Amino acid sequence: MEVNDRNSCYITRKHLQKKLVNSVDRCVDEALCGLVRASGGLCLLKGHRVVLRSDLDSLKGKVALLSGGGSGHEPAHGGYIGAGMLSAAVAGGVFASPPPASILAAILSLYQAGASGILLIVKNYTGDRLNFGLASEQARNQGINVDMLIVAEDCAFDQPSKAGRRGLCGTVFIHKLAGALAEEGCSLDQIVSKMKEVLKRIGTLGVSLSPCSVPGCLPSFDLPPGAMELGLGIHGEPGIKRSKVASADEVVKTMIDHMTNPDSQSHLPVKSGDCFVLCVNNLGALSCLEMAVVTRAAITCLESRGVVVARVMSGSFMTSLEMAGVSLTLMRADPETLRLFDAKTSAPAWPNLSTACVSGRSYITEAPAMSMRPQDDKHSQGPLSPVMRKVLDRICSTLLEKQEELNSLDRAAGDGDCGNTHAQAARAFQEWLQDHVIPGCPGQLLSVLAGLVEEKMGGSSGALYSLFLTAAAGHVTEGRSSGTAWATAVHAGTQAMRRYGGADPGDRTMLDALCPAAEELMKLTTAPPAGQMDVLHAAVQKAAAGAEATRDLTARAGRASYIAAERVTLPDPGAVAVAAILKAVAETLGEQNRAPTS
Amino acid sequence: MEVNDRNSCYITRKHLQKKLVNSVDRCVDEALCGLVRASGGLCLLKGHRVVLRSDLDSLKGKVALLSGGGSGHEPAHGGYIGAGMLSAAVAGGVFASPPPASILAAILSLYQAGASGILLIVKNYTGDRLNFGLASEQARNQGINVDMLIVAEDCAFDQPSKAGRRGLCGTVFIHKLAGALAEEGCSLDQIVSKMKEVLKRIGTLGVSLSPCSVPGCLPSFDLPPGAMELGLGIHGEPGIKRSKVASADEVVKTMIDHMTNPDSQSHLPVKSGDCFVLCVNNLGALSCLEMAVVTRAAITCLESRGVVVARVMSGSFMTSLEMAGVSLTLMRADPETLRLFDAKTSAPAWPNLSTACVSGRSYITEAPAMSMRPQDDKHSQGPLSPVMRKVLDRICSTLLEKQEELNSLDRAAGDGDCGNTHAQAARAFQEWLQDHVIPGCPGQLLSVLAGLVEEKMGGSSGALYSLFLTAAAGHVTEGRSSGTAWATAVHAGTQAMRRYGGADPGDRTMLDALCPAAEELMKLTTAPPAGQMDVLHAAVQKAAAGAEATRDLTARAGRASYIAAERVTLPDPGAVAVAAILKAVAETLGEQNRAPTS
Repeated sequence: MEVNDRNSCYITRKHLQKKLVNSVDRCVDEALCGLVRASGGLCLLKGHRVVLRSDLDSLKGKVALLSGGGSGHEPAHGGYIGAGMLSAAVAGGVFASPPPASILAAILSLYQAGASGILLIVKNYTGDRLNFGLASEQARNQGINVDMLIVAEDCAFDQPSKAGRRGLCGTVFIHKLAGALAEEGCSLDQIVSKMKEVLKRIGTLGVSLSPCSVPGCLPSFDLPPGAMELGLGIHGEPGIKRSKVASADEVVKTMIDHMTNPDSQSHLPVKSGDCFVLCVNNLGALSCLEMAVVTRAAITCLESRGVVVARVMSGSFMTSLEMAGVSLTLMRADPETLRLFDAKTSAPAWPNLSTACVSGRSYITEAPAMSMRPQDDKHSQGPLSPVMRKVLDRICSTLLEKQEELNSLDRAAGDGDCGNTHAQAARAFQEWLQDHVIPGCPGQLLSVLAGLVEEKMGGSSGALYSLFLTAAAGHVTEGRSSGTAWATAVHAGTQAMRRYGGADPGDRTMLDALCPAAEELMKLTTAPPAGQMDVLHAAVQKAAAGAEATRDLTARAGRASYIAAERVTLPDPGAVAVAAILKAVAETLGEQNRAPTS
Repeated sequence: MEVNDRNSCYITRKHLQKKLVNSVDRCVDEALCGLVRASGGLCLLKGHRVVLRSDLDSLKGKVALLSGGGSGHEPAHGGYIGAGMLSAAVAGGVFASPPPASILAAILSLYQAGASGILLIVKNYTGDRLNFGLASEQARNQGINVDMLIVAEDCAFDQPSKAGRRGLCGTVFIHKLAGALAEEGCSLDQIVSKMKEVLKRIGTLGVSLSPCSVPGCLPSFDLPPGAMELGLGIHGEPGIKRSKVASADEVVKTMIDHMTNPDSQSHLPVKSGDCFVLCVNNLGALSCLEMAVVTRAAITCLESRGVVVARVMSGSFMTSLEMAGVSLTLMRADPETLRLFDAKTSAPAWPNLSTACVSGRSYITEAPAMSMRPQDDKHSQGPLSPVMRKVLDRICSTLLEKQEELNSLDRAAGDGDCGNTHAQAARAFQEWLQDHVIPGCPGQLLSVLAGLVEEKMGGSSGALYSLFLTAAAGHVTEGRSSGTAWATAVHAGTQAMRRYGGADPGDRTMLDALCPAAEELMKLTTAPPAGQMDVLHAAVQKAAAGAEATRDLTARAGRASYIAAERVTLPDPGAVAVAAILKAVAETLGEQNRAPTS
């Protein structure tokens, strides 16, 4: 059956999304169990979806904090339980308010642990208000000192409905600040009155590029690919505007403009010189790369308005299942707010934050002077310079002559550009030779060549040759350029290639020519001066034989390893190139030796 | 144009996914900037994609740790920089190895800060091996003490290729343990030799339900909805098996079976009694809910094999952009490993972990005795019991008579079940009355009724009535059942409804009948005993008038607020029900007063 592309249709995310759960019914209980089991400081209340601090004793005489609400917003709220944050959290089903009986059970547990008062921190949704309200009235009838804070900091709507603004990620700030106060031993009344002030200074706005779906249900809304919705709720409730996905900077600017627009009843007043804490919250499925880009955009945008960004938290704090979106929360902060924000907590979902002020901090360091490549003007010629120039010239002309042969060999097993790659290196050498003197120190020359192949040759070959030359360079210096030194240098270069490249002789790579030659060259360490050329010629023979023998080898490393073995009957072009280079070196040195000494 | 469903086709994720970035070219640099700006302890190296500790001075005399690799794996590796973890990280483009020049610049910065040695921690990919290798050889030529650890802990392949196993999330364990050793002042050789031992005890396996896409590119591979791939790499490299998405428990079992299968060359030996650290790593877009379910499954599965799970970290540690998948990493741990794992670090991406052993910890707490609802056997009748029973009987019969009328009113503005909801409450009361005595204490009766409506009436109405009854209950006790007490009780109940329900008189809700009645009833506090029935009858009138007046109101709260105003010309059924209940109370009490005293 043929599919006509013009009739193709994008029905992305309209289907029931498959999730990694065991069952729709059990996913909330199992997620709570996963959280509690992984976090040493938490425990579950038997028979309820309630997570508690496992060290409840430490609440004696202090105010306990209880939050909660529908599931699907993990790590909220269970992840915020610990010393310095929440004492307990009650979870409902996914996006559903928890039952009053469980809320009451949590309150009673905290009360029986000796808490002097209990603060309920509730996001402003009717179900949560009613259920937490009912439990708190029941607790009050038992003489328990209970109070309730409603978090309603959504900046989406210019004119919020009767139901008021939604409670969003700003709730996490309240968990943190109220938790720090409770830890310090503040009374319930003190905490409530301080938090009511803080609540006026918090605002949140979200944007999403995708809907989310409750396990077992269709997506909560439709959003075509490439579109985004601004101001939507954490349960996928409608937002205020749909548009094409704009750039991160533009999206962030639109969000902050809207959040701070004085024409909107739900705006957060922001003026130059104000100090703010920023939370960049992943609604679920935005990549961490995008999150970091948005974080930068938000800091930059705020600073461009003269705002002092005091702290930034960026991550998944109040999610909407797998919604690919982000929310920004701003909290105007004075030194006292920052002190509470910075206070220690053992809550597992609280990030490892620095207490440095974000704005005004110098965050770019000067790079060190890179003295690896010998400075051109520091070269000084030496007795070996002329012969090294001749050898290098010959290597270049050899590689350029062999360009088509190497390409042709490579076409059988790779992408056919092996000759081109080597020719690029040769031309780079030639260009460099035109306007540079050859340093007298061979190691310096090898370092220069290493830099040239790294930059100009490219690909794995460039990196491998550069590795060879770099590792070899340290062994041949102005005072050490004997046969022994060169043999050691070639050996070291070969070993570096093997170590970092991960190939061995027999894998059908350039090592099949290089390794036998390097081994032969080690005879230079014992050969008398008169026998050195013989060793070199023997090494050239070994390289050529090694290259030829790659005909029968199966590639196990490098590009050719992706090709079926039977297709390759020609020698490996990398090995052929190595043999040709060695031959060029030996021939030039041989001619040099035969020439009358001038 | 009609779309024929049978011809619909799922082309999910085949299109270029829109991302929240500014440009494909700048996203890596901007993400690094976002990370560094948000994290007080980090800085950028000018001209390079290198992140460094901002307190480089503290490296003096210690070993510095450098890691890095392609971007797209955030928070790796920049997020792991800080005291006790990495000293610096080098980033390449998305999924591309960083250039040797930047790696060298990072090495030189650490060297110039006074580090006694530099350890490169590199994931086993050819590009990274070559580029980090080249930079390390260049640094060595400058006399810098450099060593390199290759992390290759992928358990996917039974017979790994020549290139070896891939480096995956286990790298983060190495960052942590090596970082703790470096912080303690261990030498480079000591750290390398210890980490080589640790590397043998780490294994990782991933699974994904979706591909990811490099910004500006098509998805890295195709995976149909409902399918998953086991053993794939963090760049979307092929895995070992595709299948339908199974349950979380089954997927986790398959993964751990495969990772620990002795027939596989890359397996991690696991036997009963062994102690392990577990990392559950979100590859990008898995919801936090699913992550917690998988975490539970992994702990349970390991424990079922007799493994002691010592620590668990669960979150986004080594991502693959927006891949909806998860990887499991296991590290066999002795007390020394755990000591290093638990050591403090300031790295921003390191989670706030507990040092408690996961296995063997008791994590379920007994629920408190719930004494809210008076125990049935604790009721004792009192002088008011007979009249309260009569009132309750009349309320029930009234609500059942009005069931269809209320439904009909509700059909105009809501979902037409208001009568049914009230009838449910009435039948619940009747059932309870059949086999219970009426407690002499009115507050006790109200608490019983609160529990019944909470459980049996359901919806917002159930919660609101329950709130009313609960808040009222505390004001009418055995000693306090005067007109004043009842007036105060009704007032408190009404206030609780307003406070938690968020509605006010005039919003077209039951409050439009209840509030004027409650206000009228307050006259009971001053009325002489003989005038109390008059006050009650006046309150009934006020309630009826209030209910009638809702005809002219626009709904601003509750379900009817979603309906256009012009459509509703009938009174609000909730208000009508309240008026009817009050009338039933007043009539019963009136008959009671007129009856001859027995």
